[in-house]
Amino acid sequence: MAVHVLHYLRDGHAQWGVVADGAITPIPGEFRSTAEFIEANPVERLMLLDGPTIAESQVRWLSPVTANQQFICQGANYRQHMIESGLDPDVKKFNMIFTKATSCIVAADSPLVKPEGVRFLDYEIELGLVLKRDITARVTVTDENLHEFVAGAVIVNDYSARDIQIPQMQFYKGKSYRTFGPVGPYLCLLQKEEIAKLGELVLTLAVNGTVRQNDTTAGLVYGPAETLTELSGVQDLRTGDLLATGTPSGCALIIPSPEKQRAAAQLPEAEKWRLFMNLQAERPQYLQVGDIVEASIVSRDGSINLGVQRNRVVAEAL
Amino acid sequence: MAVHVLHYLRDGHAQWGVVADGAITPIPGEFRSTAEFIEANPVERLMLLDGPTIAESQVRWLSPVTANQQFICQGANYRQHMIESGLDPDVKKFNMIFTKATSCIVAADSPLVKPEGVRFLDYEIELGLVLKRDITARVTVTDENLHEFVAGAVIVNDYSARDIQIPQMQFYKGKSYRTFGPVGPYLCLLQKEEIAKLGELVLTLAVNGTVRQNDTTAGLVYGPAETLTELSGVQDLRTGDLLATGTPSGCALIIPSPEKQRAAAQLPEAEKWRLFMNLQAERPQYLQVGDIVEASIVSRDGSINLGVQRNRVVAEAL
Repeated sequence: MAVHVLHYLRDGHAQWGVVADGAITPIPGEFRSTAEFIEANPVERLMLLDGPTIAESQVRWLSPVTANQQFICQGANYRQHMIESGLDPDVKKFNMIFTKATSCIVAADSPLVKPEGVRFLDYEIELGLVLKRDITARVTVTDENLHEFVAGAVIVNDYSARDIQIPQMQFYKGKSYRTFGPVGPYLCLLQKEEIAKLGELVLTLAVNGTVRQNDTTAGLVYGPAETLTELSGVQDLRTGDLLATGTPSGCALIIPSPEKQRAAAQLPEAEKWRLFMNLQAERPQYLQVGDIVEASIVSRDGSINLGVQRNRVVAEAL
Repeated sequence: MAVHVLHYLRDGHAQWGVVADGAITPIPGEFRSTAEFIEANPVERLMLLDGPTIAESQVRWLSPVTANQQFICQGANYRQHMIESGLDPDVKKFNMIFTKATSCIVAADSPLVKPEGVRFLDYEIELGLVLKRDITARVTVTDENLHEFVAGAVIVNDYSARDIQIPQMQFYKGKSYRTFGPVGPYLCLLQKEEIAKLGELVLTLAVNGTVRQNDTTAGLVYGPAETLTELSGVQDLRTGDLLATGTPSGCALIIPSPEKQRAAAQLPEAEKWRLFMNLQAERPQYLQVGDIVEASIVSRDGSINLGVQRNRVVAEAL
């Protein structure tokens, strides 16, 4: 059985609970990080949790991934989004990895702050995987043992300042502004039997009620098992770390086709980027102050429901 | 006065001490992270530290930056290295920021593991700055108040697998392999009067005794003050976090001129990268198993001496 966990603030205290139908069953104990929480609370035990409940409406959401964990991201990991991003899926033969600063992690209902000076603010709904154990050497992760490495799933919105991210080449800065990483609301912990459902989740993102992104994780190019296998040969990963698996098509970003990029490559750099900015300026899809972004991820059978993120775009207070 | 601090292992215990002329004066207390150490040990107090010493030869070096800190890097931040990297310094008008996984941090005398499958292993000596305080909102850092934000300096070698880093576009993976981030040996803590010397340090890197990189921090394009000012508007920084400020010219990497890149942009992607790999294969400067890399950073007056890093290249044990 999948167990949906909420990290929340009540009476000034950060707590964890199992949530179902708007009611929270508090989990005994204090866990200061996602690692501590996961290590102390196997899903098999949480399934049996009992006791008095509180209404979800009485608490304030917190991110189920704490800021001391790693925030690792895959880029261009859905075929159609690759094409949108100016990459040829038949040529890009690597798993693009970058990070976001963990200070961008906020609760799922946090306002999204549009930073002063940023023009092209974009959304990216993503399935986030939360790790179940430390990985400190090469391991081979397969669909069969994936449940030993992945504790569960969350919604991530990988908000991006395209006018910083793309011309500056390294994605980190343009994707790391404070509030650019809402996580949650629910961390859905999965048992072995359910782990395959990670490949059949439906992602939906709407802006002001209009659906912009709608796809399923069946479209992932590099799946969780092969990604963790490769990363294990590069770096250490820790229990509770977050892997955001990339976004499907439908972002505001528009990048010229590979053919047009080849033509643009002949232009002086400054002229090339001027054209890029002009192209983005024609896209009404970019987020404006006052917009509401809603993101949800569910399995077709409804047994996994990561909740709904809701972020209102606000101007940076200077 | 500048105080040189060593983080070291003795009798199985991690400790901190002030080092001078090969003698360590142990600093009382246990500090599990760089943040804890810096917060508890202002340079003004360490200057007065007294007591029995131990010989540096009796201890094992540890990195003075612990793995729980952020490892943030500037890219292409010396004019000549920008040209080498195929960037036009008069066109690139941004401060390129990326990260390395902190699991790559090792002691300054650690072996450098050449990962299985990596062909083009390169070195990058860099001045690393260690932060003195948390920064959680926009601040204006200037040369005048820089000492309030920067505790001190270390040597960083930003080792890079060029065959991963460059074709995969995002630098994170190719720069994050385990052992790719030696830090130290000495953390030089600076008082207000000495902070300006950060702009006059001499960086020298040699491979098998032959000098490959030799430049001064006077050549930095984006200095510490403006970099911290900009980053403060993006993300939170914490006491003890590490900012690697970029490497000068002299790496093994060779990238075609902007003109040649424009020509190559007309080729199919796969052909373009085949040519890139062929170009690198002609560079005998790339590191091979058995090579010894030595890196040092000193001020011209000798008052700041960050020690000598020494890394022997070894093959990955599989």
